[in-house]
Amino acid sequence: MKQLNVGILGLGTVGGGTYTVLKRNASEITRRTGVAINVVQVADRNLANAKALATDADVTDDAFAVVNNPAVDVVVELIGGYTLSRELVLKAIANKKHVVTANKALIALHGNEIFAAAKANNVIVAFEAAVAGGIPIIKALREGLGANRVEWVAGIINGTTNFILTEMREKGLNFADVLGEAQRLGYAEADPTFDVEGIDAAHKLTIMSAIAFGMPMKFEQAYTEGITKLEQVDIKYAEELGYRVKLLGITKRTDNGVELRVHPTLIPEKRLVANVNGAMNAVVVKGDAVGPTLYYGAGAGAEPTASAVVADLMDVARLIDATSAQRVPYLAFQPEQVQDLAILPIDEVQSAYYLRLRASDKPGVLADVTKILGDRSISIDAMLQKEPDENETEADIVILTHITVEKNMNAAIAAIEALEAITTKVVRIRMEELAK
Amino acid sequence: MKQLNVGILGLGTVGGGTYTVLKRNASEITRRTGVAINVVQVADRNLANAKALATDADVTDDAFAVVNNPAVDVVVELIGGYTLSRELVLKAIANKKHVVTANKALIALHGNEIFAAAKANNVIVAFEAAVAGGIPIIKALREGLGANRVEWVAGIINGTTNFILTEMREKGLNFADVLGEAQRLGYAEADPTFDVEGIDAAHKLTIMSAIAFGMPMKFEQAYTEGITKLEQVDIKYAEELGYRVKLLGITKRTDNGVELRVHPTLIPEKRLVANVNGAMNAVVVKGDAVGPTLYYGAGAGAEPTASAVVADLMDVARLIDATSAQRVPYLAFQPEQVQDLAILPIDEVQSAYYLRLRASDKPGVLADVTKILGDRSISIDAMLQKEPDENETEADIVILTHITVEKNMNAAIAAIEALEAITTKVVRIRMEELAK
Repeated sequence: MKQLNVGILGLGTVGGGTYTVLKRNASEITRRTGVAINVVQVADRNLANAKALATDADVTDDAFAVVNNPAVDVVVELIGGYTLSRELVLKAIANKKHVVTANKALIALHGNEIFAAAKANNVIVAFEAAVAGGIPIIKALREGLGANRVEWVAGIINGTTNFILTEMREKGLNFADVLGEAQRLGYAEADPTFDVEGIDAAHKLTIMSAIAFGMPMKFEQAYTEGITKLEQVDIKYAEELGYRVKLLGITKRTDNGVELRVHPTLIPEKRLVANVNGAMNAVVVKGDAVGPTLYYGAGAGAEPTASAVVADLMDVARLIDATSAQRVPYLAFQPEQVQDLAILPIDEVQSAYYLRLRASDKPGVLADVTKILGDRSISIDAMLQKEPDENETEADIVILTHITVEKNMNAAIAAIEALEAITTKVVRIRMEELAK
Repeated sequence: MKQLNVGILGLGTVGGGTYTVLKRNASEITRRTGVAINVVQVADRNLANAKALATDADVTDDAFAVVNNPAVDVVVELIGGYTLSRELVLKAIANKKHVVTANKALIALHGNEIFAAAKANNVIVAFEAAVAGGIPIIKALREGLGANRVEWVAGIINGTTNFILTEMREKGLNFADVLGEAQRLGYAEADPTFDVEGIDAAHKLTIMSAIAFGMPMKFEQAYTEGITKLEQVDIKYAEELGYRVKLLGITKRTDNGVELRVHPTLIPEKRLVANVNGAMNAVVVKGDAVGPTLYYGAGAGAEPTASAVVADLMDVARLIDATSAQRVPYLAFQPEQVQDLAILPIDEVQSAYYLRLRASDKPGVLADVTKILGDRSISIDAMLQKEPDENETEADIVILTHITVEKNMNAAIAAIEALEAITTKVVRIRMEELAK
């Protein structure tokens, strides 16, 4: 088995998530890449915490020991900031190690220098996790949409501010009140400046603009306006006019130059991106061939961010067998790892259901129907009983059920259709929450 | 300059779009990959049409001439069906040519055989365009979300049926009436069976399930139920209960087997995917680390599909320099092709605006304000004039403007604020349509 040896700098939220995901999904990751990705060393100032979590790795409080460790192939930088992290990343590159980072400030401010060093040393510097957390937007921009001349990119790329704006709209609260709530819930930091003033979003936007248009990082020229002065009344008036207010990062190619701006923005409520609520992120990319496409998901958090960090590590691992046409296997997993999984017959599928019955308007019908469902342990989530139309003696009954197995529902429907008061076939449509 | 020589089979809608995008964006594509992608030969039964479009390529009506052409490195199969296309693809593979295809039926039905042949010949078979058109969902599943154990995938992956369902909901029409309209508009084919019975969606779902879980194509075991029996009344009742009805393809890993099913489905209206309307597609992927992520865009059409075909060709082109850490360059474009584009100062940015003014309730104020805007060629899109609250003599005026340049708006706002009747600062929020 081919091996990729990883050193992690910083075992905080994202570092811990990365360690956990690599360990939990180790077999799935190896099934995909054909490579075992091992964490061989971890550096954290809190040695006790790090040792408790990273039980399979060497643990140190000296980050330079990791970047200088000859056994480490790739350094994962998750300590944040842009002074020490810059030094560590440049040292790792000089030592011919690949680098994966989630550090948007580092890339937005020092990306030009870091990429030049990486090119000179022929190492990968990957940073999917730096923008929009677990959403693979960097890969979409660099590869998936590579055929396009990108015209503009616009995104909700800061979860804290989107949470605040959502609460302001839904609860009619002012910025200051929601900020306090967000801090209590852990959605906002004690010093929220980077988020609420749009600086964090400008870091991420800077990275997307560079990749979309093929230009250097120009963070210092980004226009940045936060949400601290946004008043409740304007969110209300915008809604009356059919708009939602979002903190957008927008970068657009124009004949006169590239727009690079973060500010509160009215968006028509019928746009999908206007309906991205809570702490979620979404990025809209407009390409000349594909038109607008949208990418949505969690923009922060331990495991969503780890999802992007580990995907980058897998790209590094794919360098080992790069010349194979199966660098990325046809079916995502190595051919010998494809499993002949059984398909569940539809009778065995579990689902919730929408049922519509047409029943004579007689007493006892509903009792009979609910008994049939109850006898088969099918519980009712909601019901809608319609009055018969004028000159009619039958009416619609609509029932939403909780989850049951399809064959159970088939039996219930057969029993319901056998009732004398039920005059037509039962209409059945499956229901999915798509939440978890 | 490195070269990749392409032969295209079928110069219809998608083939024509592919030729056009490759030609129009040739310099952008080469800036990204460092490779010139040339269409050297094209096969189409309609020679005259093909010659009129593909002016730079050799044109033939013999598809086998292309797959046997020693000058062709990669064959793009866009003729559809799964008899002749299977034969052509297998012949191309036997001739050690890479294959790019948009053919979902071919992959869903014969993918297992094709991938085995491709592996034996160490060639790429890429099929991003086979699922959800221009949305890079195959890349997201295979690479971007590779760190995850995928739990389920659910998608609106047929534009025809989503268009029909959207019209049924918005206009209160029945299936048959909307189908006729869809056929007139070109959203549905003369024989719409493949779309409206869910077979097309089942092809795409089969492909996603194989990639999500690492298993062979099992199209013949997919459960497929279309929308032809769906009644208007059920869409209405679902809406009363807070749900939308969508034709979903759902594949889910369970302890007992893999679910693989296409059917009309109620989804809570607050889910983003429930708000995907018209002919657009969207896929939700639930990974154990990242949680739910969503991918949205055009699922069909000449250039959206071409966007995916050409992205696949770029992946093939990247095999030429596969061992470089810059296989995909840091900034998406080759380092020497990164351009130092100018950033537009915010004063020069063009935007529409939301303005809120607080004005004394005197006659003539609105005339003064609209004159100031008109004098600067700023036209008004909408206006909201509020009554003064009880015991107040001032009221809010909200104006939405059309697009103007920011410095022009700054001047207008200064003039408005100088009016005696305007008692506070003007609140200004930028507006974006994000439509084109």
